[in-house]
Amino acid sequence: MPRWEQGSEERLKQAAMELFAEQGFEGTTAVQIAERARVTTRTFFRYFSDKEEVLFADQEVLHDALVEGVLRTTDVAEPLRVVTLALAGFDWERLGSRESQHRRDAMIASHPGLLERDLIKQRRIADGISDALQRNGVDPDVADLAARVGIDVFRTAYRQWLDGDDDADLPTLTTTALSLLATIVPTAAG
Amino acid sequence: MPRWEQGSEERLKQAAMELFAEQGFEGTTAVQIAERARVTTRTFFRYFSDKEEVLFADQEVLHDALVEGVLRTTDVAEPLRVVTLALAGFDWERLGSRESQHRRDAMIASHPGLLERDLIKQRRIADGISDALQRNGVDPDVADLAARVGIDVFRTAYRQWLDGDDDADLPTLTTTALSLLATIVPTAAG
Repeated sequence: MPRWEQGSEERLKQAAMELFAEQGFEGTTAVQIAERARVTTRTFFRYFSDKEEVLFADQEVLHDALVEGVLRTTDVAEPLRVVTLALAGFDWERLGSRESQHRRDAMIASHPGLLERDLIKQRRIADGISDALQRNGVDPDVADLAARVGIDVFRTAYRQWLDGDDDADLPTLTTTALSLLATIVPTAAG
Repeated sequence: MPRWEQGSEERLKQAAMELFAEQGFEGTTAVQIAERARVTTRTFFRYFSDKEEVLFADQEVLHDALVEGVLRTTDVAEPLRVVTLALAGFDWERLGSRESQHRRDAMIASHPGLLERDLIKQRRIADGISDALQRNGVDPDVADLAARVGIDVFRTAYRQWLDGDDDADLPTLTTTALSLLATIVPTAAG
């Protein structure tokens, strides 16, 4: 892909986030996003099937990074920790500033159509992680549980990080959330 | 609602499941379902907004039963156990035979549109349970984590129950799944 096209994609994402913030998600059209990014509407649709998809442009990168991270971890004696480490270890800052991720998260939470799309993409990530664990020899039920619960734990930390109430980084918040889970799981003996 | 109308709803659900099994989900229309149930198409749409919704007709009952169950449990010292007990304690058999629930589950898994709807309904149930825990005094982060993880644990048990590989009942399978989770969560000290 030529360099100028990569530039278009970034400009489109930037323009979309600006317009969503200024005039709301519903009030923004693909045509307006293209105009603001100084590209044709046709170029917009070369990158994104609809305006919703702009918000999920990085999900493929995230999915692949997580699956590769889990596949590389051959020590799977603690599968839940493998999952939370892979999630916390991803370079989240590359998806944009914390503030813009916070806006994105709030926008998804308040639009059922976006939430549906987010949930199905999260499910795809959970399935990919579970599959990667199984390829490393983890039992299917354990792999599924570790993938889903690991994402729940990480979501707790990620939301705290987005809220920015304290200065802790994501890996620290994730470790704390995992400890929080440990306090509510009955011990193996109990 | 007059008794004969309740009969229509049950007949519509039954007819839909039969037709989905016989000719697939895509190949079945609301008109065909109404015909098989010997009601008018207009009656179909009095009960269901579309054929998809027939598969989720019991979600409201499930949501309310779970939320009420959690609200009634004032001892929330072990919030995760409260959630798994509420889920395992629901009378799942009232949603139809295990075999028909198995068919429903497989149908949802293989249709992205149904899966999206299922995920958003599951999310609504998780939010309802989390809210009920919070109304009983549980910290919001703990309540959210307990609701989501509790559903993950229960899903493991429910899938095993649907597969019917052993004769254990749902409460027993859920307890086993909770023990499985305990084996992969680092101890609070660790």
